[in-house]
Amino acid sequence: MNKATFDHDSTDPRLELRRNLRPDDWNNPAPAGPYNLVVIGAGPAGLTAARIAARLGARVALIEAGAIGGDCTNIGCVPTKAIIRSGKLYADARRARHFGADAAGETPDPALALQRVRKVQARISRSETAELLKSEGIDLFFGKARFADHRSVRVGDATLRFLRALVATGGVLRPPAIPGLAEIGFETVETLFDRDTLPRRMMVIGGGPLGCEMAQALCRLGVGIVLVHDAPKFLPEEERDAAQLLSESLARDGVQVHLNTTAVSARTTSEGKEITLSTGGDRFAITVDEVLTGVGRVPRIAGLDLAAAGIAADPETGIEVDDFMRTTNRRVFAAGDVCGGHMFTHVANAAARIAVRNALFFGRQRLSRQIIPWCTFTDPEIAHVGLRADQAISQGIPIKTYTVLMHENDRAITDGEETGFVKIRVRQGGDRILGATVVARHAGDMLNEITLAMERRIGLRALSGVIHAYPTQSAAIRTAADACVADRLTPRLRRLSGMWMSLLRRGG
Amino acid sequence: MNKATFDHDSTDPRLELRRNLRPDDWNNPAPAGPYNLVVIGAGPAGLTAARIAARLGARVALIEAGAIGGDCTNIGCVPTKAIIRSGKLYADARRARHFGADAAGETPDPALALQRVRKVQARISRSETAELLKSEGIDLFFGKARFADHRSVRVGDATLRFLRALVATGGVLRPPAIPGLAEIGFETVETLFDRDTLPRRMMVIGGGPLGCEMAQALCRLGVGIVLVHDAPKFLPEEERDAAQLLSESLARDGVQVHLNTTAVSARTTSEGKEITLSTGGDRFAITVDEVLTGVGRVPRIAGLDLAAAGIAADPETGIEVDDFMRTTNRRVFAAGDVCGGHMFTHVANAAARIAVRNALFFGRQRLSRQIIPWCTFTDPEIAHVGLRADQAISQGIPIKTYTVLMHENDRAITDGEETGFVKIRVRQGGDRILGATVVARHAGDMLNEITLAMERRIGLRALSGVIHAYPTQSAAIRTAADACVADRLTPRLRRLSGMWMSLLRRGG
Repeated sequence: MNKATFDHDSTDPRLELRRNLRPDDWNNPAPAGPYNLVVIGAGPAGLTAARIAARLGARVALIEAGAIGGDCTNIGCVPTKAIIRSGKLYADARRARHFGADAAGETPDPALALQRVRKVQARISRSETAELLKSEGIDLFFGKARFADHRSVRVGDATLRFLRALVATGGVLRPPAIPGLAEIGFETVETLFDRDTLPRRMMVIGGGPLGCEMAQALCRLGVGIVLVHDAPKFLPEEERDAAQLLSESLARDGVQVHLNTTAVSARTTSEGKEITLSTGGDRFAITVDEVLTGVGRVPRIAGLDLAAAGIAADPETGIEVDDFMRTTNRRVFAAGDVCGGHMFTHVANAAARIAVRNALFFGRQRLSRQIIPWCTFTDPEIAHVGLRADQAISQGIPIKTYTVLMHENDRAITDGEETGFVKIRVRQGGDRILGATVVARHAGDMLNEITLAMERRIGLRALSGVIHAYPTQSAAIRTAADACVADRLTPRLRRLSGMWMSLLRRGG
Repeated sequence: MNKATFDHDSTDPRLELRRNLRPDDWNNPAPAGPYNLVVIGAGPAGLTAARIAARLGARVALIEAGAIGGDCTNIGCVPTKAIIRSGKLYADARRARHFGADAAGETPDPALALQRVRKVQARISRSETAELLKSEGIDLFFGKARFADHRSVRVGDATLRFLRALVATGGVLRPPAIPGLAEIGFETVETLFDRDTLPRRMMVIGGGPLGCEMAQALCRLGVGIVLVHDAPKFLPEEERDAAQLLSESLARDGVQVHLNTTAVSARTTSEGKEITLSTGGDRFAITVDEVLTGVGRVPRIAGLDLAAAGIAADPETGIEVDDFMRTTNRRVFAAGDVCGGHMFTHVANAAARIAVRNALFFGRQRLSRQIIPWCTFTDPEIAHVGLRADQAISQGIPIKTYTVLMHENDRAITDGEETGFVKIRVRQGGDRILGATVVARHAGDMLNEITLAMERRIGLRALSGVIHAYPTQSAAIRTAADACVADRLTPRLRRLSGMWMSLLRRGG
């Protein structure tokens, strides 16, 4: 990867991004046939699979209808995390007097932040360019793929025969069905980062991970944000107290939060875009300059003619796969968002690794055996792995939770980053870790120790013996483990230990 | 712990700190005797030991000559990390335009930063107050301890008999022997945080962890810093490339770096404090307003009359202990900085846990069995565990190092935190982890996964199977593990794999 600094880079990052990920002058190669593996979709899952297979000496074709990198590089993880970083910097600057720096400049410059997003995208695209993939021995085809039969795919005029294929076409945004919204127009993450600057007032509809991340980041960059969510708490996949902390953090940043609220209609007035909201029985209207919807993402299967290859799929839940990532066509596998479920880049990546091994080497690896963490990149971050408390209860598994609040952690105090907690859930009466939630500024980096422990069935008490450098925020994990160890000291044991001490004193 | 916010806290934090950690109206209790454990020194090691022992029903006395919390809370980890955070905020603000926020205010306010340090100290002191220790059943004595004989300690007029004792008196700063320096006066971390504001120009003598941390933090807060170090690289305990990256970061922050340079004399002139430096054969003088020395810390054993208890000790290397933390008096143990070696809070804590178990329960736990990480809290942080490359070479252990540069990590790029690397060293031909160095903004939080793997002898290849949330900086650890897995694909295996693929194509 080329290590260039942004500031001295004069190329237009949009041009570089296109040149790297969707070069205009690309000539599709002549199909060699048959391929060991034809991969449809060059997002995180497809790229991983194609690159591994090529390294193993397989003849590989990779077909991409849009741009290499998929949603991750082009509209999802990469641009959102870049703008989150800008927002975080500005949020810190607003607290400057607290930390002893002078009050910072009051006005963030959204245009600069958006320019930086595109520079970051261009930087990251350098490790997955069309040329690079070609040099790795992959036959790269740009165009729409369509199954011709059980053993071949068509792209443009070419027919690619395959021994095995992997469908990794990802997902597609589905705008919410709000009467009038399509007419007045709205932004999605597909269009947001192409703007030259940000609007003054914006409504974000949908309080899932992406909605919350964007609401907070844009608010911190000076946009007046109204966040509308139709459920009583944000982040449906997270525990109540994590969602609650996030809700407070959003409010502290100045986000106008409307929970239990549905957008029912939209129209343009002389003031801007007027959205009518409904909560309980009440209706009221809020006018903003722009609407961002982060809700609804469905598997991208249209136009693939999956039926021609005997691949079963559902428009809502995506391609049907078994635990080995195999579709109903035994020669075809699928991985990533096109299979529905947890739509995360790292899950797509893990599934792709499994699919390649199972497809090319008679592997019997199962996705269900993987411990899958995830993280919402708000501030604080919310990282999670394993069972939630409510899941354990509904499955009848008795659990005990060890909680350490970040404001009990010395480093969190010195850092002024005290919002959050470490919660680790173990099976009652033992110490086998069933799940954990970490809410902290760098929760995503703190969680891995717990994921590793779960993966290797290392009990929570053992983590008490792992020395953590002082002072670090992750030492809160050890504090939780210490509490689990201390729990072994039951009243009875404590009495025995006291009697022993007393005996020693008499003996001495 | 009391969760108060700083901003609404009107108490003078210095008063609160004293009231919590060294109350003026404290009355030492009447000695109960004999004690199961007498602990001398209420720093990290002594506090840990006394609290664990008390919880186990032991009769415990704790003797403190200064203030509870020891160097950690009062002059070391806590205040330094608090001021580092302020410096970091200001360093970020200086890069504001890069991230798309407006240029921030140019003048940090060191007086505010120092006030915050004291508030942070007061906050952290709330979890270790004299009253709290008393309520936990510990007999707390303020005063200087002195061994009377093999089985008793005197503090003031009181004599405390013990079955077991733990010496945890920590270390004491030793100012460098620079002619004239004592006469012109200088700061140490013992005095620095009591200042109302910071000087305009400051020389930091000594480029160990503390010297580097303070040089960077104070520079970022607007102090003109000259950092003088008598060796060719900073951080004697770290690898060359980590020290090199730090050196570059310090220079980027504006620290004037003088390596291979010794301070030879000091005097006051009308301009300020003039220090004469020597490098190679050259001598030159630099004038500053104040000098900070972070060098030289020796075990604190003066006045303890260790000889009266038959405890062997050396003024340089401290109390002699075996691997079980036992001194030459079989009833007396020692832990923490008073034993020399790695003077870290978390090592003191680990040694104290071992000492308590071995002292009270015939335990046979060994310190040498512990995997000990450490971290220098500069920006980027430098975290380390296990063997360095040069140590492996000198021990004749063949190693292979897997390196991932942070500027290859997507999150480091989106965060604009690309300075650093993950280096993991394994035994050549296998994947057993022998050591690792992580240089990254939050390296201290990223390292624990590796420490856990080493502790449990989990090979590096297994970390390739641990899913890390995307995008996180810690995913660089998995990237290193992936490289280790890829290494198994030797040219011969690759050829075989290619032949297999070719066979499949013919069969298909």
